Formats: sequence, structure tokens, C-alpha cells
Amino acid sequence: MGRPPTPLLSTDRITAAAMQLVDATGGFTMPELARTLQVSPSSLYNHVTGRDQIVELLRERAMSEVELPDEQPEGPWTDVVAEVLRSYRRSYARYPRLIPLLTAYPVNSSHAIRMYNVLAVTLRRAGFDAADTLRAITLMDCFVLGAALDVAAPDEPWHSGEEVGPEFADALATGVGKADRADDAFEYGLAALLRGLSAD
Amino acid sequence: MGRPPTPLLSTDRITAAAMQLVDATGGFTMPELARTLQVSPSSLYNHVTGRDQIVELLRERAMSEVELPDEQPEGPWTDVVAEVLRSYRRSYARYPRLIPLLTAYPVNSSHAIRMYNVLAVTLRRAGFDAADTLRAITLMDCFVLGAALDVAAPDEPWHSGEEVGPEFADALATGVGKADRADDAFEYGLAALLRGLSAD
Repeated sequence: MGRPPTPLLSTDRITAAAMQLVDATGGFTMPELARTLQVSPSSLYNHVTGRDQIVELLRERAMSEVELPDEQPEGPWTDVVAEVLRSYRRSYARYPRLIPLLTAYPVNSSHAIRMYNVLAVTLRRAGFDAADTLRAITLMDCFVLGAALDVAAPDEPWHSGEEVGPEFADALATGVGKADRADDAFEYGLAALLRGLSAD
Repeated sequence: MGRPPTPLLSTDRITAAAMQLVDATGGFTMPELARTLQVSPSSLYNHVTGRDQIVELLRERAMSEVELPDEQPEGPWTDVVAEVLRSYRRSYARYPRLIPLLTAYPVNSSHAIRMYNVLAVTLRRAGFDAADTLRAITLMDCFVLGAALDVAAPDEPWHSGEEVGPEFADALATGVGKADRADDAFEYGLAALLRGLSAD
């Protein structure tokens, strides 16, 4: 039984190749993808309906490490939300360059929708009306995606040249050499955000 | 006096071409940039020191519409911060695909540093210590960059299929056909964030 010289084309292989292209170049086109996989563009369409479906497959990967509680989570709403957002950030931080691609397409993948269902149920129970639930979820999304990008930032995200004023220089000095700078700032931001939403 | 067939190469033309490439493909390489400008890669280096400098030139463009108050701004700190963050978001929303590229490089451009100086001065005056000033600025950055991505999101950022639960469906319904959905959510989020930081 001979093994084929290249693995068979599959949805998984297409998704993995698209992810590598996004990671290396910031995006992907169907012809680039076909070239990378050494297949004709038309063979891609035997496995996926098109670029939109690949984007949703990439979203599923980005979401794959998001841990969700039961659909009817117990405990204070701020704890439930905090846990979801922590794992949402961790999961997306693996693929920072994917983020603007995902936000440019409507969310249409099961695991993502399940996460938003949990957030919406939790917020409604906490007393948010429907409109504020959408606004609060949007705030959480913006914060988490920005924070996922911050994980990929350099260890010192700002140069400290002579234009840096004394107040900003003092602030920057507190982050220098701090291995958990991004995690620490995320926890501070998460607490502020939940306090602000609680005090509405 | 004949006009040269193509405009002379300049830092401005290089930056504009890099921005177009990022907008179209998500990134740029020096060879791609040279090809787009129909010059040899080595002629790029007569105008810029390399890729890092181009990234900072792109950051200056993304920041170009950020309006800053005087270095010693008057008024409640929450108002000063809110105005800066509004124009920061508007300015970056023009170039969503640039965002992960900028966050991957240390900030080293004058206008950006001036903005962070204003934020740091304002937060220190409001009583934040140096460490919390860095954390609060990081929170603002994460929120604004995420919100700038949300401006580029589709009119309806979520599909409403059968997996969408009743609570999330109710929330989504409040955003449907609302032209200012992203702006409205940004103002809600900004208010929550400032409330949360005030209540620290």
C-alpha cells in the first residue's frame, strides 16, 4: 500500500493552510491558498463553498480553546462573564493577525454563537435589557480582541525616547521587565469594565 | 520640461503604497512594496531605513486625525480622556487591517507619544499611581483598537441562525437596521469604562 506523495485535500488541511497564510502575511486569497496546497483553485471548491466558509472555519479554530460554562451558569454574573472573557482572550491571542479578518465577516460559527448565548443569558439575568445586552457584549468583544492583540505586542510596547514626558515615563517604568505586563493589565481592565457595567 | 513617466519615489509614496497593500492584503513585504512602486528593493532603502520605519510612518497616518488638547488640559479627567479616545477610534477606524501590524511593533512615532503623554498627565492628575496609569492606558488602547475594528464590521455583525438563543436574539434585534450601532455601543462602552476606572 503506497502512501500518496501529498496528503489528501480536506477541509482541515485547507483551514490549516489558510491560518498559516494569515499568520505570515495578514490575509489569504483563494489562488494563494491553492498554490500553497499545490492544488488547482477549483479543487478547493470540492471541499469548501468559498472564502466565507474558510473564514468561519478559521473562527472556529480561534474559538476552539474558549471554555464555556453550562447554558444555565450559576454564580454572580460578573464571575461568569470574567471566566468566559479570560478564555476568549487566551484563545484568540494565539492568532492576532486573524482578528481584523474575523471582525470583517458576520459571526456564523456554532462555538462563537454558543459563547454569545452564554453572555446574553447571563446579562439578561443580571438585569440588562435587550439593547444594553448587545452594547455590553460589543464592549466585551472590543476589549477582548484588543487585549488579544496586546498579548502579541512586544515586551515593551512603547519606545522610551526623549519625547516621552515624565508622567508617561514613570508609567512605562512600571511595566519594564514585567513578564506578566499584558496579563496584569488585562485583569485590571476586566475588573474596571465589570465595575463600570455593574454601576450602570 | 518633460514630466517623468512615474512620480519620483518619496517617503510619502512609499507609505501610501504600503498602506494600500495592508488594506488589500493585510500586510506588506519590502519586495511586494518595490513591485507595487515599480522600483528595485534597493531604491526603497534610499528613502527609508527599513520595514520598521515604514510601520512607524503607517502609525503616523493612522494617528493623523487624533485631535489632542493642550499638554495641560483643563476640565474633568473623564471628559479629557473621552475626547481623546473618540478621536483615536475615529482615526484608526479608517485602517482596520493595519491594527495588528501596529500592535506588533513598539510605538515610536511623535504624534502617538504625544497622545500617550496627554493620557498619562491626565490620569496622574486624577490620582492614578504610575502602575495604574500604565494599566488604564492599556485598557483604553485595547478598547479603542477593538472598537475601531467594530466600525469596519458588517452592518449586522452576527448571523441570526437557529443556534442563536432567545436572549441573544432579543439583543441582536435591537441592533438590526440601526445605522449607528457601532457608535452607540462605543459611547456605552466608553461611559462604562470611565465609570469603572473612576470607581477604583
